[in-house]
Amino acid sequence: MKALVYTGPGAIEYREHPMPTLDADTDIIMKITHSTICGTDLHIIKGGVPTVQPGTVLGHEATGVVTEIGASVRNVKVGDRIIASCVSACGYCRFCVSGMYGQCLNGGWALGNTIDGVQAEYARIPFARNSVYKIPDTLSDEQVLFLTDILATGYEVGVLKGQVRPGDTVVIVGAGPVGLSATLTAQLFSPRNLVVVDRVASRREVALKLGATHAVDEHEVAGLVAQLTDGLGADVTIEAVGFPDAFELAADLVRSGGRIANIGVHEGPATLHLEKLWAKQVTITTGIPSGLTIPELMNSISTGALDGTKMITHRMTLDETEAGYDIFKRSAETGALKVVLTN
Amino acid sequence: MKALVYTGPGAIEYREHPMPTLDADTDIIMKITHSTICGTDLHIIKGGVPTVQPGTVLGHEATGVVTEIGASVRNVKVGDRIIASCVSACGYCRFCVSGMYGQCLNGGWALGNTIDGVQAEYARIPFARNSVYKIPDTLSDEQVLFLTDILATGYEVGVLKGQVRPGDTVVIVGAGPVGLSATLTAQLFSPRNLVVVDRVASRREVALKLGATHAVDEHEVAGLVAQLTDGLGADVTIEAVGFPDAFELAADLVRSGGRIANIGVHEGPATLHLEKLWAKQVTITTGIPSGLTIPELMNSISTGALDGTKMITHRMTLDETEAGYDIFKRSAETGALKVVLTN
Amino acid sequence: MKALVYTGPGAIEYREHPMPTLDADTDIIMKITHSTICGTDLHIIKGGVPTVQPGTVLGHEATGVVTEIGASVRNVKVGDRIIASCVSACGYCRFCVSGMYGQCLNGGWALGNTIDGVQAEYARIPFARNSVYKIPDTLSDEQVLFLTDILATGYEVGVLKGQVRPGDTVVIVGAGPVGLSATLTAQLFSPRNLVVVDRVASRREVALKLGATHAVDEHEVAGLVAQLTDGLGADVTIEAVGFPDAFELAADLVRSGGRIANIGVHEGPATLHLEKLWAKQVTITTGIPSGLTIPELMNSISTGALDGTKMITHRMTLDETEAGYDIFKRSAETGALKVVLTN
Amino acid sequence: MKALVYTGPGAIEYREHPMPTLDADTDIIMKITHSTICGTDLHIIKGGVPTVQPGTVLGHEATGVVTEIGASVRNVKVGDRIIASCVSACGYCRFCVSGMYGQCLNGGWALGNTIDGVQAEYARIPFARNSVYKIPDTLSDEQVLFLTDILATGYEVGVLKGQVRPGDTVVIVGAGPVGLSATLTAQLFSPRNLVVVDRVASRREVALKLGATHAVDEHEVAGLVAQLTDGLGADVTIEAVGFPDAFELAADLVRSGGRIANIGVHEGPATLHLEKLWAKQVTITTGIPSGLTIPELMNSISTGALDGTKMITHRMTLDETEAGYDIFKRSAETGALKVVLTN
Repeated sequence: MKALVYTGPGAIEYREHPMPTLDADTDIIMKITHSTICGTDLHIIKGGVPTVQPGTVLGHEATGVVTEIGASVRNVKVGDRIIASCVSACGYCRFCVSGMYGQCLNGGWALGNTIDGVQAEYARIPFARNSVYKIPDTLSDEQVLFLTDILATGYEVGVLKGQVRPGDTVVIVGAGPVGLSATLTAQLFSPRNLVVVDRVASRREVALKLGATHAVDEHEVAGLVAQLTDGLGADVTIEAVGFPDAFELAADLVRSGGRIANIGVHEGPATLHLEKLWAKQVTITTGIPSGLTIPELMNSISTGALDGTKMITHRMTLDETEAGYDIFKRSAETGALKVVLTN
Repeated sequence: MKALVYTGPGAIEYREHPMPTLDADTDIIMKITHSTICGTDLHIIKGGVPTVQPGTVLGHEATGVVTEIGASVRNVKVGDRIIASCVSACGYCRFCVSGMYGQCLNGGWALGNTIDGVQAEYARIPFARNSVYKIPDTLSDEQVLFLTDILATGYEVGVLKGQVRPGDTVVIVGAGPVGLSATLTAQLFSPRNLVVVDRVASRREVALKLGATHAVDEHEVAGLVAQLTDGLGADVTIEAVGFPDAFELAADLVRSGGRIANIGVHEGPATLHLEKLWAKQVTITTGIPSGLTIPELMNSISTGALDGTKMITHRMTLDETEAGYDIFKRSAETGALKVVLTN
Repeated sequence: MKALVYTGPGAIEYREHPMPTLDADTDIIMKITHSTICGTDLHIIKGGVPTVQPGTVLGHEATGVVTEIGASVRNVKVGDRIIASCVSACGYCRFCVSGMYGQCLNGGWALGNTIDGVQAEYARIPFARNSVYKIPDTLSDEQVLFLTDILATGYEVGVLKGQVRPGDTVVIVGAGPVGLSATLTAQLFSPRNLVVVDRVASRREVALKLGATHAVDEHEVAGLVAQLTDGLGADVTIEAVGFPDAFELAADLVRSGGRIANIGVHEGPATLHLEKLWAKQVTITTGIPSGLTIPELMNSISTGALDGTKMITHRMTLDETEAGYDIFKRSAETGALKVVLTN
Repeated sequence: MKALVYTGPGAIEYREHPMPTLDADTDIIMKITHSTICGTDLHIIKGGVPTVQPGTVLGHEATGVVTEIGASVRNVKVGDRIIASCVSACGYCRFCVSGMYGQCLNGGWALGNTIDGVQAEYARIPFARNSVYKIPDTLSDEQVLFLTDILATGYEVGVLKGQVRPGDTVVIVGAGPVGLSATLTAQLFSPRNLVVVDRVASRREVALKLGATHAVDEHEVAGLVAQLTDGLGADVTIEAVGFPDAFELAADLVRSGGRIANIGVHEGPATLHLEKLWAKQVTITTGIPSGLTIPELMNSISTGALDGTKMITHRMTLDETEAGYDIFKRSAETGALKVVLTN
């Protein structure tokens, strides 16, 4: 089959790759119909994720059709249209049984990382019982595609951990795909103010189109939040960038008693101003999504309350993936948010 | 009347001070029967709390008897034995109505800070309706004295924010009065392992007497926690010191999905290792107690499940307060934990 | 002044009544600008609420302007535009301090019940500090009027107790003003299906206009819910009628693990089918609103996410109140939902 | 092998029965070391559980050693000492993924019900990955045996659903094995008063021995609770009988804002006095245990905070099971609580 293969730091190639086969009776094989490129994939290509060996098929977000199932798989059958969560959950370790699939001791983020991923014609999905979801007939693949990662991440790690409530003032730092996913899913809880912070004007425009009530840069935000909240600060701040200054901004903007939800993938430490925060009764959370909210988010997509397709900026076929990576990498120039690859 | 007065950086004096009078109809006057010295008082004397003006009576922890009540006070009457919370809560601001008395916009920590405190014969307590509690006849003043601050702090900001549960492995960094208060109140939730970390051997001994299952220094703790938890980390870590390295230790010892409850009063920033924590699904909390748990902690004192008097190392009369401060200040040498002053 | 007075079973009269005066330093006097008639008022007139003495001014839902304040009132001042919650909360009893204002040991539902109410030119509001809320300049009286009772009730006792979540299937039994308030406020959480049950066709039509996704009678609902949920049952059912069969229907429609929130005021017992429910892991809740969500609901009104004025069917002046009661009483015929009285 | 077989209404026989074999790759076979008799077993024998076919081996509570494992079982291996939860959980249905194993759509209570049970030399345990737990080397089989059902039930469905907190007044209606299990596990949360209600004097004595602070009959309890709570009512009431009057008593004794946790298995409806409860802000819960708390309860057993062996009144070998049933059935006379069968 054909697949997009990471061939070593700085290099990818769309080429022939062995067909996946069932390794364990908990695996399935799926024929990929749609996949998409993630910022993490760029990070891998730069050589920034040492667990990824050269020769690995990239990609951890896909929809498709089940073509083969392991003997112990019960939740799907051959021919089912499914999405595969970016997290493969064993379903029985101490973390899985408490709903923390992102901390799974046996699986976790494996696709396009420690095993071959989904930017390919076919893929093997481990631990399918707790990691793949049937797509309702009424929903298209594109409608649910981003549930595999960014929508679930924005919702679980940002909106739910941040405990967004009706009437809240919410600040989301970063208008990349994950920040925008938090922007979209936060609206399910009807916040009063949904402020998105990004230094790139075009991203701020997208944020407003996707439902942000305000979109400002990092210099304007403190004044705006003060004005919106009578100087009190935001009820919830969500960090969706992954740099120390973004986290520190999120921590600085929150009110006493507020919540700071970190989604960003960080490569270094941040400064925690405990001299200001120790008394403020704040809650700071971090995490990885479980994918367990995929069914409820599918419900919200069904009603039109959530529409992730608004983030699609480019569509192309799988054999154009290399061009897709190029477009995605030059997002500042191309305006790329999500590039959808179809088979 | 007589009182212990802060007379400027480095100086206190036990001397005559004007009798307090009702300023607002929400005030009461209480005749103090027992008070105690807090680490914060030492900090004030060092000049480290700029809100405290010279001439202020120190102390924010006391029991006593009501001698006068403002016109709108309903919850106590003259003659009632009471304790006064260290936090004065207006009861109607946006924080008080959501139970966050520590964030009160009209009161907060005022006693022995912005107004005269309780190391005196009499004291005025503002916002009495939401800030003082009757002492049950069956309990002595000494039994409830530490509910005014350290027991409520250890319980609310440490144990409850940290969500200690039966069977948990809990690490408490710091065996000072607040850390020991967390040690005592954590036992109400029957943790499996209650590990206290302190570099002072005598404090570790006290921690063991007060119910810690293990007491170690900061070099031993990582190994111990790994051994107790099969390498997974503690369910809950509680920081009760107030220095960056203590917080960083607490953050380092927690397991994926665990809780880090900061109680320590910090004067500078700490380093938050988001490069390790972003994916670990941890929750970090900070705060100030509300005192709202005082009635339930009184219940636990009644049954014997909680006994704060174990922390009393010295008892003296109010006119010996200056000596008490000296003993308390030299705690490494004197073994002082809590010095109780009686009138 | 003029007021609508309950003069004994079956009888009301719009007549002269003594001006209210401050009784306690926690009271305020407000000049009423808008009030409204509640189903409970009809119940009082029938003689069904024995705590109401003849001679009492009716009404517990009003907006107005503060004309006088007691000495200990701090949260509002003369001239402020306010709404008064139907529940008067002392703010310091064991229930108030835990946010359960509806269970207040010193106040509770007093207006138009044990003391004179608000269908008058002026009214005395007890415990003003925890019971009245300033109206933002950007909102009209009509926009916030129903926060005094039905919107807060529908939201707190129905939607929040029922833990409505994005994607849920919610059934609301009863399309009277309270059921419709639950219908309106449930939408703040973006449920997938919002099914309203009422035997009156015109009410079902109103429910659909107010955002219900389905409106059916009590015979159709079981089939509909089964179809919407693959036979599993509703995630949340909300009972807003107050009769045993309505509660039993709500209990029957819920799925395993679901929530049944009772809002209805019941005068007799219902049958609880524990032989079906004991194993189903359901949660049943009851309650009275606290009014503590009024500020957040005001936020939702500000954004347009919530619009209670859709329930206004009739507007008239205070001196036409008797006619208003007549219209309200004959709601089946007149289509009356909420009759707003203006001064 | 030998097993205790239900041979039809009123009849059991200890006889030869076919050895179990692996049916699915998610099964294991365990050699039983200890089992115990449950009240439900008596109910089955009376013919009261129609799902149980004549010829079925009884028993759903056992410890043992793994002798064979299905191909997809990963959490245990041959030779492991384990306990099997009474609930067999598939681990992937919509209820299992949200931790509600008791509602599992594919498993549930099967052992000794729809499939052969564990009062035998060997048993097949379905869905082993989410249904069996290794026993720590430091704990004996007897120490953990009751975690399979009654301790998990008392804890999860009684204590946790009832949200028992330090300082609470808790009433447990019924001092049978499940009520006593709630009595034992409630102590992990350090309640102030732990009142057990039973009409049988010998059971009340046992309750006191197991840690109840008060044990009274159903006529005395209302007065006692009023006295203990200043007339307010209990914070939590737990119903562990399964008859309407027991539930109604539990509902009657709770305070405003309190929790009523039903554990009892009911065969008919109860009366729910909504005319009293609608305004009281109570929460009523029902349920079946998940077994997910077994690891944390094992921790509490390790520390000595929980000791279920106190409920063992009789020990005998498996071949004496018929005599064991006789003793258990005549519990009023024999004082039997838990009869442990050893192989």
